[in-house]
Amino acid sequence: MQITIQELAHAIDAEAAGDLALTISGAAEPADASPSEIALAMSPKYADALGRGQARAAILWPGAEWQELGLDAVIFAPRPRMAMAGLTALMDRGQGVEPGIHPSAVVDPTAVIDEGCAIGPLAVIGARARIGAGAVIGPHVTIGMDAELGEGAVLREMVSIGARVRVGKRFVAQPGARIGADGFSFVTPEVSGVENVRKTMGDQADARAQSWLRIHSIGAVEIGDDVEVGANSTIDNGTIRNTVIGDGCKLDNLVHIGHNVRAGRDCLFCGLCGVSGSVEIGNNVVLGGQVGVVDNIFIGDGVIAAGGTKILSNVPKGRVVMGYPAVKMENHTEIYKAQRRLPRLARDIEALKKAVFKSGSSD
Amino acid sequence: MQITIQELAHAIDAEAAGDLALTISGAAEPADASPSEIALAMSPKYADALGRGQARAAILWPGAEWQELGLDAVIFAPRPRMAMAGLTALMDRGQGVEPGIHPSAVVDPTAVIDEGCAIGPLAVIGARARIGAGAVIGPHVTIGMDAELGEGAVLREMVSIGARVRVGKRFVAQPGARIGADGFSFVTPEVSGVENVRKTMGDQADARAQSWLRIHSIGAVEIGDDVEVGANSTIDNGTIRNTVIGDGCKLDNLVHIGHNVRAGRDCLFCGLCGVSGSVEIGNNVVLGGQVGVVDNIFIGDGVIAAGGTKILSNVPKGRVVMGYPAVKMENHTEIYKAQRRLPRLARDIEALKKAVFKSGSSD
Amino acid sequence: MQITIQELAHAIDAEAAGDLALTISGAAEPADASPSEIALAMSPKYADALGRGQARAAILWPGAEWQELGLDAVIFAPRPRMAMAGLTALMDRGQGVEPGIHPSAVVDPTAVIDEGCAIGPLAVIGARARIGAGAVIGPHVTIGMDAELGEGAVLREMVSIGARVRVGKRFVAQPGARIGADGFSFVTPEVSGVENVRKTMGDQADARAQSWLRIHSIGAVEIGDDVEVGANSTIDNGTIRNTVIGDGCKLDNLVHIGHNVRAGRDCLFCGLCGVSGSVEIGNNVVLGGQVGVVDNIFIGDGVIAAGGTKILSNVPKGRVVMGYPAVKMENHTEIYKAQRRLPRLARDIEALKKAVFKSGSSD
Repeated sequence: MQITIQELAHAIDAEAAGDLALTISGAAEPADASPSEIALAMSPKYADALGRGQARAAILWPGAEWQELGLDAVIFAPRPRMAMAGLTALMDRGQGVEPGIHPSAVVDPTAVIDEGCAIGPLAVIGARARIGAGAVIGPHVTIGMDAELGEGAVLREMVSIGARVRVGKRFVAQPGARIGADGFSFVTPEVSGVENVRKTMGDQADARAQSWLRIHSIGAVEIGDDVEVGANSTIDNGTIRNTVIGDGCKLDNLVHIGHNVRAGRDCLFCGLCGVSGSVEIGNNVVLGGQVGVVDNIFIGDGVIAAGGTKILSNVPKGRVVMGYPAVKMENHTEIYKAQRRLPRLARDIEALKKAVFKSGSSD
Repeated sequence: MQITIQELAHAIDAEAAGDLALTISGAAEPADASPSEIALAMSPKYADALGRGQARAAILWPGAEWQELGLDAVIFAPRPRMAMAGLTALMDRGQGVEPGIHPSAVVDPTAVIDEGCAIGPLAVIGARARIGAGAVIGPHVTIGMDAELGEGAVLREMVSIGARVRVGKRFVAQPGARIGADGFSFVTPEVSGVENVRKTMGDQADARAQSWLRIHSIGAVEIGDDVEVGANSTIDNGTIRNTVIGDGCKLDNLVHIGHNVRAGRDCLFCGLCGVSGSVEIGNNVVLGGQVGVVDNIFIGDGVIAAGGTKILSNVPKGRVVMGYPAVKMENHTEIYKAQRRLPRLARDIEALKKAVFKSGSSD
Repeated sequence: MQITIQELAHAIDAEAAGDLALTISGAAEPADASPSEIALAMSPKYADALGRGQARAAILWPGAEWQELGLDAVIFAPRPRMAMAGLTALMDRGQGVEPGIHPSAVVDPTAVIDEGCAIGPLAVIGARARIGAGAVIGPHVTIGMDAELGEGAVLREMVSIGARVRVGKRFVAQPGARIGADGFSFVTPEVSGVENVRKTMGDQADARAQSWLRIHSIGAVEIGDDVEVGANSTIDNGTIRNTVIGDGCKLDNLVHIGHNVRAGRDCLFCGLCGVSGSVEIGNNVVLGGQVGVVDNIFIGDGVIAAGGTKILSNVPKGRVVMGYPAVKMENHTEIYKAQRRLPRLARDIEALKKAVFKSGSSD
């Protein structure tokens, strides 16, 4: 691509100065930038790196003395990551799926493909599936029968959309994302050891060895608008009703969302986090990497769980939690500090016992 | 589908009452049910929700006063989840893979496909592979050379079955399941830092930087009857002999089973749990979500590990464990309670030291 | 295969004794070995098992009294796992991808396929992609446009290589590995709850509900020589520059490497471990199973993290860490021991308080 500083500033809604007609063909980190690339140096800490690169233009922090940095042109970014969103959307070269339906794709004659779609090689579109306008479907994608995909979807290679799944507008799915697998739901003819342990917290009572019978998922998955699902992540079908993911939710890679989960809008689920079946999640919830959530609980609006947290009970609205099991962040910090002092506390207690009882430990 | 209450009750082996000739066409949660759907309200807590829906028939808890709930017909479920198993099996509409071999599938001429199979678009069946009667193979599945799949298998889209893998009857694999990847096994020419740490627990001694040499997996995977593997889960080949998964085991999504693992029958492995190489697992073991198991240990029959548990040493038969590292559930609860009191205990010790030694902490 | 003891010993660079002309056709564990298989019994603990099998030849520990074990021929393995590397490489029968380009593969006419490649059924090779000599590309693989794959690559079925990804020589990718998904990077128009929490560690301040804007990844992934990536693992594109994986790194199954990560050479990443965005990793680092690493930190050369560790801050060179949050292994052990004694310590403190203050707890 070729774009002037003026055009770029306008596209990302930012202010520019210097030689606005200067043309750039790409973006780079400050020390790596060639003369035809704009350097991204949105904080003063990158000033030095700028000097090591060859950029003639840069996106800088507000108030930067750009002329002293040897630049010919500059764009100012008051909120750097917002500038990044605009810039990278502009410069994304995509994966090269060609418009139209590739001759090797297997499209059921009853499927409805709206205008402007690009369907890649060896994609499979099932009976009565509906693909919204402008969708880009990568190679080796499977869209199940009766599934619906809203307009503007971008599906990378090898994404699965199961039968009867409904997805809103502007859906993005990274390679290998699985929407609509069957839920993990089994039952034993008689009460099982797991059921006993949930009651007794530590005793399997007289549960005997049994085999598991499958509960099929006759529900599907329902996904709102503007949702993104990461590479190899999985969202399971509901048992009777649909599993629901609200508008604006974003899932990272290798995330697992169990059957019957209902998530509100604008949640973030980071890499390798897992939400068990039938969890109710509010709006604007953030689950960090490798967070786990047990089944059948609720997580209120705005909850944030730090990476690695295991949530074993309901979390009220607005709470910030951490730990295994999850506690309020401030409690976790306090517990953790005390833990690190534990070996010393143990020695203090020994000394106290000696002084008070005139005798030490009997271990 | 159209089914009468009488037929449904008979199919799921339950008792019915009221208008047994009433026909339903589906099932729903109580508040969502239309007049043609049977409401699933198997506990008194759903009684209210029934009133908000339009169901004329319901599956209810034993002894429910169904006429007072305004229903025309009822089925009683003494063990609700067993009723769910029967009902959902009956109502599962499947993924729509057509009987026969889709013309776009690539089937090696030496492969043996038994009668009644459905092989979906763009599936690949390797040389000398054997597919048992009635198997349903979804789109984009790969079955490796010399692999064997028992009768009645259901493989969703993009499942991998590696060369020489042997799978029993009624196997179910969710999208993207990977059976028969190579194990993760490497060696350094000289003793490595990891080997040192295992001996010294804290000192890498004089290990020097080295590269890793690959140990290939010349074993495969051997899976019993009635096994289910979740979406994007992985089971690795054994190094010399086969990795073994016993009859009736069920794996959730994103589960990892390492090389040489031997699991007994009827185990449950929940989402994102990981079992390292050469672990021996008994029968009826349950590993909760995100449980981890280190390599080369054994886990006895009937062990249950709560979600998030990291198992670092052998676990005897029947034990219920939790925590990182895993301890008996009851110990974990006691430790955990004491942890939450830790900050206060630390303050108590300070007060005691002041009283006894007439001086506080020297930190 | 048919190979003599002499040929095998020579191939794995080991010493042999006995009937060097004896021919074997495979390898097995000692108790399972048939007369035509060589038994692998590289430690005295396997001596008994040898007796239960029928092997006439074995690979034994140095100094073993092989004649007393009833064997006709023997190979000595001073470092058993090194012998395994050689032996298994020799005996690996592979997955059966035929030389040449399968007629069902979809290869863009501008792609460059070097000599001696095997491209499996239904693989897709994008525009201007370059495939190095001798590569083996399994069924259903997608290679994106402008991607480069070095010589000698082995890609199992359903691997994704995104557009513009560059991979070195002798790359091995297990089924479903995803190289070059977009990074997980989003921004809110105003400061978000997550940003507030990172500053205040426990207070979301006045963050209001907002939606997430996507930051596209305009970088790709750059992988060195001799790298292996496990089944269903994911390595994301960089935001501006490339994500980098150094020579000799090995990733197990279901591993997640975030955008902008830079890993040095010869690192091991075990199953289900996750590295967040922009982490800098040195050489010879080992992350155990289910390890998590928060974003934007560094991990020095030779660091080893035990399974389940959550790394929340920088780790200096050579350190061995464990726990959540990660601490030095020796501290973890000490803290852990004290934790198990916690319930008793709490009782000791009560007793001390009674004795010193003449009163117990007021809880």
